[in-house]
Amino acid sequence: MSMFIEKIKSEGLAHLSYIVGDGDEAVVVDPRRDCEVYIKIAQREGVRITHIFETHRNEDYVIGSCDLARRTGAVIHHGVGLDFAYGESVAEDDAFAVGDLRLRVLHTPGHTLESISLVLTDRSSGETPVAVFTGDALFVGDVGRTDFYPDRKREVAGLLYDSLFNKLLPLGDQAILYPAHGAGSVCGDSMAAREFSTLGHERRHNPVLQKTEREAFIDYKVNEHHTQPAYFRKMEALNKDGAPPLDRLPVPVPMTPAAVNQAVKDGALLLDLRSPEAIAGAFIPGSLAIPLDMLPAYAGYLLEYDYDLVLVPEEPEQVPVAVRYLIRMGYERISGYLKGGMHAWEVSGREYDRINAVHANTLNERLHGDTAFTLLDVRKASEFSAGRLHNATHIFLGDLQERLGELDRRQPVVTFCGSGRRAIIAASILKRHGFESVEDALGSMAACKRVGCSIVEG
Amino acid sequence: MSMFIEKIKSEGLAHLSYIVGDGDEAVVVDPRRDCEVYIKIAQREGVRITHIFETHRNEDYVIGSCDLARRTGAVIHHGVGLDFAYGESVAEDDAFAVGDLRLRVLHTPGHTLESISLVLTDRSSGETPVAVFTGDALFVGDVGRTDFYPDRKREVAGLLYDSLFNKLLPLGDQAILYPAHGAGSVCGDSMAAREFSTLGHERRHNPVLQKTEREAFIDYKVNEHHTQPAYFRKMEALNKDGAPPLDRLPVPVPMTPAAVNQAVKDGALLLDLRSPEAIAGAFIPGSLAIPLDMLPAYAGYLLEYDYDLVLVPEEPEQVPVAVRYLIRMGYERISGYLKGGMHAWEVSGREYDRINAVHANTLNERLHGDTAFTLLDVRKASEFSAGRLHNATHIFLGDLQERLGELDRRQPVVTFCGSGRRAIIAASILKRHGFESVEDALGSMAACKRVGCSIVEG
Amino acid sequence: MSMFIEKIKSEGLAHLSYIVGDGDEAVVVDPRRDCEVYIKIAQREGVRITHIFETHRNEDYVIGSCDLARRTGAVIHHGVGLDFAYGESVAEDDAFAVGDLRLRVLHTPGHTLESISLVLTDRSSGETPVAVFTGDALFVGDVGRTDFYPDRKREVAGLLYDSLFNKLLPLGDQAILYPAHGAGSVCGDSMAAREFSTLGHERRHNPVLQKTEREAFIDYKVNEHHTQPAYFRKMEALNKDGAPPLDRLPVPVPMTPAAVNQAVKDGALLLDLRSPEAIAGAFIPGSLAIPLDMLPAYAGYLLEYDYDLVLVPEEPEQVPVAVRYLIRMGYERISGYLKGGMHAWEVSGREYDRINAVHANTLNERLHGDTAFTLLDVRKASEFSAGRLHNATHIFLGDLQERLGELDRRQPVVTFCGSGRRAIIAASILKRHGFESVEDALGSMAACKRVGCSIVEG
Amino acid sequence: MSMFIEKIKSEGLAHLSYIVGDGDEAVVVDPRRDCEVYIKIAQREGVRITHIFETHRNEDYVIGSCDLARRTGAVIHHGVGLDFAYGESVAEDDAFAVGDLRLRVLHTPGHTLESISLVLTDRSSGETPVAVFTGDALFVGDVGRTDFYPDRKREVAGLLYDSLFNKLLPLGDQAILYPAHGAGSVCGDSMAAREFSTLGHERRHNPVLQKTEREAFIDYKVNEHHTQPAYFRKMEALNKDGAPPLDRLPVPVPMTPAAVNQAVKDGALLLDLRSPEAIAGAFIPGSLAIPLDMLPAYAGYLLEYDYDLVLVPEEPEQVPVAVRYLIRMGYERISGYLKGGMHAWEVSGREYDRINAVHANTLNERLHGDTAFTLLDVRKASEFSAGRLHNATHIFLGDLQERLGELDRRQPVVTFCGSGRRAIIAASILKRHGFESVEDALGSMAACKRVGCSIVEG
Repeated sequence: MSMFIEKIKSEGLAHLSYIVGDGDEAVVVDPRRDCEVYIKIAQREGVRITHIFETHRNEDYVIGSCDLARRTGAVIHHGVGLDFAYGESVAEDDAFAVGDLRLRVLHTPGHTLESISLVLTDRSSGETPVAVFTGDALFVGDVGRTDFYPDRKREVAGLLYDSLFNKLLPLGDQAILYPAHGAGSVCGDSMAAREFSTLGHERRHNPVLQKTEREAFIDYKVNEHHTQPAYFRKMEALNKDGAPPLDRLPVPVPMTPAAVNQAVKDGALLLDLRSPEAIAGAFIPGSLAIPLDMLPAYAGYLLEYDYDLVLVPEEPEQVPVAVRYLIRMGYERISGYLKGGMHAWEVSGREYDRINAVHANTLNERLHGDTAFTLLDVRKASEFSAGRLHNATHIFLGDLQERLGELDRRQPVVTFCGSGRRAIIAASILKRHGFESVEDALGSMAACKRVGCSIVEG
Repeated sequence: MSMFIEKIKSEGLAHLSYIVGDGDEAVVVDPRRDCEVYIKIAQREGVRITHIFETHRNEDYVIGSCDLARRTGAVIHHGVGLDFAYGESVAEDDAFAVGDLRLRVLHTPGHTLESISLVLTDRSSGETPVAVFTGDALFVGDVGRTDFYPDRKREVAGLLYDSLFNKLLPLGDQAILYPAHGAGSVCGDSMAAREFSTLGHERRHNPVLQKTEREAFIDYKVNEHHTQPAYFRKMEALNKDGAPPLDRLPVPVPMTPAAVNQAVKDGALLLDLRSPEAIAGAFIPGSLAIPLDMLPAYAGYLLEYDYDLVLVPEEPEQVPVAVRYLIRMGYERISGYLKGGMHAWEVSGREYDRINAVHANTLNERLHGDTAFTLLDVRKASEFSAGRLHNATHIFLGDLQERLGELDRRQPVVTFCGSGRRAIIAASILKRHGFESVEDALGSMAACKRVGCSIVEG
Repeated sequence: MSMFIEKIKSEGLAHLSYIVGDGDEAVVVDPRRDCEVYIKIAQREGVRITHIFETHRNEDYVIGSCDLARRTGAVIHHGVGLDFAYGESVAEDDAFAVGDLRLRVLHTPGHTLESISLVLTDRSSGETPVAVFTGDALFVGDVGRTDFYPDRKREVAGLLYDSLFNKLLPLGDQAILYPAHGAGSVCGDSMAAREFSTLGHERRHNPVLQKTEREAFIDYKVNEHHTQPAYFRKMEALNKDGAPPLDRLPVPVPMTPAAVNQAVKDGALLLDLRSPEAIAGAFIPGSLAIPLDMLPAYAGYLLEYDYDLVLVPEEPEQVPVAVRYLIRMGYERISGYLKGGMHAWEVSGREYDRINAVHANTLNERLHGDTAFTLLDVRKASEFSAGRLHNATHIFLGDLQERLGELDRRQPVVTFCGSGRRAIIAASILKRHGFESVEDALGSMAACKRVGCSIVEG
Repeated sequence: MSMFIEKIKSEGLAHLSYIVGDGDEAVVVDPRRDCEVYIKIAQREGVRITHIFETHRNEDYVIGSCDLARRTGAVIHHGVGLDFAYGESVAEDDAFAVGDLRLRVLHTPGHTLESISLVLTDRSSGETPVAVFTGDALFVGDVGRTDFYPDRKREVAGLLYDSLFNKLLPLGDQAILYPAHGAGSVCGDSMAAREFSTLGHERRHNPVLQKTEREAFIDYKVNEHHTQPAYFRKMEALNKDGAPPLDRLPVPVPMTPAAVNQAVKDGALLLDLRSPEAIAGAFIPGSLAIPLDMLPAYAGYLLEYDYDLVLVPEEPEQVPVAVRYLIRMGYERISGYLKGGMHAWEVSGREYDRINAVHANTLNERLHGDTAFTLLDVRKASEFSAGRLHNATHIFLGDLQERLGELDRRQPVVTFCGSGRRAIIAASILKRHGFESVEDALGSMAACKRVGCSIVEG
């Protein structure tokens, strides 16, 4: 029964939560909404979860504190300065014992105003911090965004500077870093692929921490550009007021093609989870395609909360995975899935459509040819400006549904992104909205570079 | 620790094997090659596997008797009349005790000459047979094929008649039926979807058992048409001489696109396991497409044993599944798989190809249009004659690689089958052999019927 | 996606429930209270649970119909003649389709008045019954008890005769038997170790079905002796009125020896789940010992519903198993467990006690010696009368707590049963109630027979 | 597909091994013998194991390098200075790339002469060491033993000083520490319960690293006392010459009491794995008791390699766990286990014995009483001298089999240790060798302190 720290990663969101235990007790930091995972670990280790810490009011997922507290009797704690409808506030230097371990609160504002970090010490081996849970203040290779208070940009960037340089780094090089996100999160662009680090390693190599001069740091942060998916507003509200209880995960029912048809008529959205290639090969007209592993990153831009979802999976095993991804973002109306997948649809005789794949070489030829077409690049602005093809039209994927009016429907469109994966989502959106000639550049910019297309910068 | 019978189904082949235990012992009937499953069950139940029975020399998979015997010390038994290089022969009425259970041997030739059935009785409840393991003599809804002795067709069909009517059915209506195959096997066309039955139920409802007159039965059997995949010859040899030991399953290594390219240059075959839609959307030129769940049924027609296989999976989880399917059929040279799947290939800038899907309505229009094209129907002869589209060209999928010369390469081809799934394999074969215009009728005959295409019989 | 019948066995109670599916649907027969197992199977098979059948109002466990219905939307069905507070009644010959399968209702009273059986046919293969779910009317090797209506003994035994001989057996020898209990249940003494059978096999070999003459059958049944654990009354009430919802399984918290002490002071019962040998070696004074695998059979005799339970496990893995056993019998107040088990107790310096094991040879010597002692045999009356040691005192284990006053506290006691396992429970009861000299005959009657003790019959 | 480091802990031995991966490759550090765990992780992550590092020639377990290399094609590496019969030597500063990660070799002798450490850097984030694999040079809270070269004690202690202070600590406070053992290992007495640390934390708080003066460090190390289990010699030989291949884990067969008896007659040792309390309650005469979780620590002192082992488990699930523990220490002759455990033995009528538990209070009374008895304390010398009961006789458990002659067989013996667990092993040894009156102080020193027994120091 030794001390343990277990990291629980929610794939896609790249959200990292932690359970820390010693003796008979454990605490959880930033639990996710499908929270049975913490209860199972606690059972396995023979500990009782007594405290739940929220390092900050999250905007990118529904936090599971309320459900976990309801099921374990643990007390929820968060920082001061936000009017939470649940839990208790903690102040600088409040300390919590977990067996021989101790967690001490640091107020580390910047990403949000009430953000806290938790400093871990081991009473059996001295007072030097063993580790620190930094929430969204400090990541491996990056620091937290500071764009959530548009009117107070310089102020909050300055707060983050102070948190990093005056509170966190002084804990010492030896402290192991446990942040709230890993690579792939929408909460930071430049996180490292490596998920293990220390304050000492970050102090030397985290690019943002090299900006040791306060004003330069602030200048850098206020000039960063981040996108804000529409669902952030919903998450902020849920995480301030407490999410509705989720006793258990929804179990979407299997549906025949006829039942799927009826559901769509009744207002459901058909959500295709298959791979870009499979969507390219055949898809159901009217469906929105978001390949399963892209769901955490893009559902929040593209889905609303006021209709039912019917899934089109590659395999039935994808359904419970999609359910987890969706409920973590507050989407609970997942009523069913197409049993037998596209094959069932095809043999029913119903119409299907396809999206031709365009290789980089073909694209290159067309760019030098005479036929007019729209090359729609849906990457982020920063990616676009770092390198693009001639004559590309840029609309970020997250904005595409709102900006369709800017496109000429009479022209053929080839969708384009970094690798062709976001492009298939874009192609599916165009198809849903009546564009007739839509193709997807599978391979996109990555392939263009390999075959030597000419790239424009800026 | 009660008596147990556990059925182990090998998906795809629809091969059913059994482990039967009581007290401290167990026996296995018709083990598959990846035989750790029986050892795990034996461990869980606290029994030792003492005997292995082969109901017949199998032609559709490599039997796992030798490996299982090597690992457990069990004795292998098979019927008399074939010159096996391993194991011991058993004769009519030989009996084997397993705790309170008893297995008695019946010689039930017909499917093969040395076929046996095993009658199960429970000494604690009387001598009436509780159940019978019938091998390939009797299935739920069908009986075994009798086409393996072309010179002695009537003779072996008569032997099967005698086995069924004079040996098996007399065991009584109450006997539970445990056959060696379930629905989906290449060893019988008409098996029921239901996998639980009794001799009494079969006596009344099995269509073939309604032919109670011996000559009529024989006439029926000799007029059946079955296909014989090329790999049957290999299986027959391995199962007579004893398969080479397979200590553990091959572990294909992850390969970059460059490494895949090199492997192909060195003679490897690229085997695409993805769904028909994904293959349609984008595939690697030169690869052979057999969607994973069709591998057990079609690998044996289309793959050789003298080259390495490199897999193109939809997800890495497909790789170990494919490995099991392949080694069960004796394919052991599985050297690697494309890591990252088609996406990795696409972003590498390498060429890919696609196969357009043709809907039943479009096909119908083309059939009534002016443009010449080959509608290539690759179903079995019996399916083709039961109902086909006008002007369809028929080559059974299993024969297609040998009969490509019969097709006009200058004409566009639309491949066609029952649902579009075999058609994608056919399309991939044509593409591999240089046909340029190849499309696949996803939905195929099933969709044609639903949309009202005109169907020709005979 | 073939038809499936999956048997779910709840160990200890030997309760058998079933999920039967085809196409998109499934039904469940006699679900247990921890009902997520059915939902998981339904998800795996891609079916929706539409109907739940209760073959009878159960008296030995809390049925899970209400929870399962709440989570799936399925409709609950039971027989007519009892005033259920939930669900819908079904009448003779009501039929329910599940894909190609059909379930037809037979009213088969006897065990209870509203008992039903369900006849399974497969529309794709004719009308002969494939199988029958017989509830507690017919088991493998036995038939249902008829002792629940003491005033109408002959009447209900006659009803069962009619159900068996006039309704069930006429379904035909070929029908596979799916009863509601297997060997080890309190619902029948003589069930076979074999759990697979057919009506034909039972017709010939089930000992009770050999009593084909109605009056002889009735005579036999009214002379049977069954024990009725106290908790049966509670189960009957819950299963008529509908059990309270159980959203999820209780999660007992780990407790220190000090916390366990406090809980006991506050009225909790300490329940020791360890093996008879471990209890013999050292146990906590005041605890009640019921080895884990005996919990389903004896908790209902010995535990009340109006106090908390604190568990003493051998390993923490036993805790969730015990929780399942207990909630199935309606015990939900399981507040904690001794973390670290007896070892934690021992190193805390707290008192422990032991129960010496007495070998058959030693017992034999003592029986022929001069020292007076009570040999307390706690087996069932039928076992006792079939063979006992000289001078044994008989009190059935289930009655022991109520009949302690009959024993002489001044004499040493050796507890005794079939093998020594029930004897350890008895010894623990005596110790709890202040008996000072208590030993347990590990091996008991089984060992006595092997070493040649003299056995008295009658 | 991010970078990963996964720690694999072998319970009992507290042996820590690691698999480190990035891109398409992975390396393994100090693999255990049952090495399928690394292959499974590699499959899951889509990487190929290319290198295996042995930080030192291990003496406490059979290293799995040869088996893992045989199954993966990876190359084995170890330090220079020992005449290994397999693998390749690596020299200071040799470097190995794993995707973007780099492992650099440091020669860090002291524990053994050829010991190496591996410094991990991440090329994508600068040259500062991210982490270091220290083998048995540096642990969390302790450093490696230096007692394996009795003639060169001061020299090797000095080598370790140089390795720690001149090579490892200079890597920087920020480096995460990955040692080869965690708490509970026989390779260091004072390891922390915490298994995560950094060089910076150890520099400040590791007690041994506070001895910064070279001579003082050497003095401290040469005065340490460690025990050397007999099996160390066997491990050293196997790990120098290469262990025999272990294709798969042994599968002990279930045995009846009669078969167990026969095996013992044929020379097998009966090894009882149950809990101290269960052993106390009833055990088979002649068996050696080592509770399962103590097997890794004590098997090597007490078992020989030249006889078969037959196991007496509490539950059959213990058998495969015991098999893993045993083969890791080179014990491969595990022929069977008693099916049904002690219960099966008891009902067979065979003799059993028991070992009474003696509470601290009782012991205290006896110590002050008149009856002569031997209080046999089997703890380590260092524990004994730190605090013992009056008149205790000390023989370390690991030496007990050899030193039985020192004990007076005519006197009753109470075995004693820290908690009563080692005492049960000692009691079982005495019983095996004919001591008649043997009791075990369950609770032992821990309980004595709690109840206020008087403790003697020194």
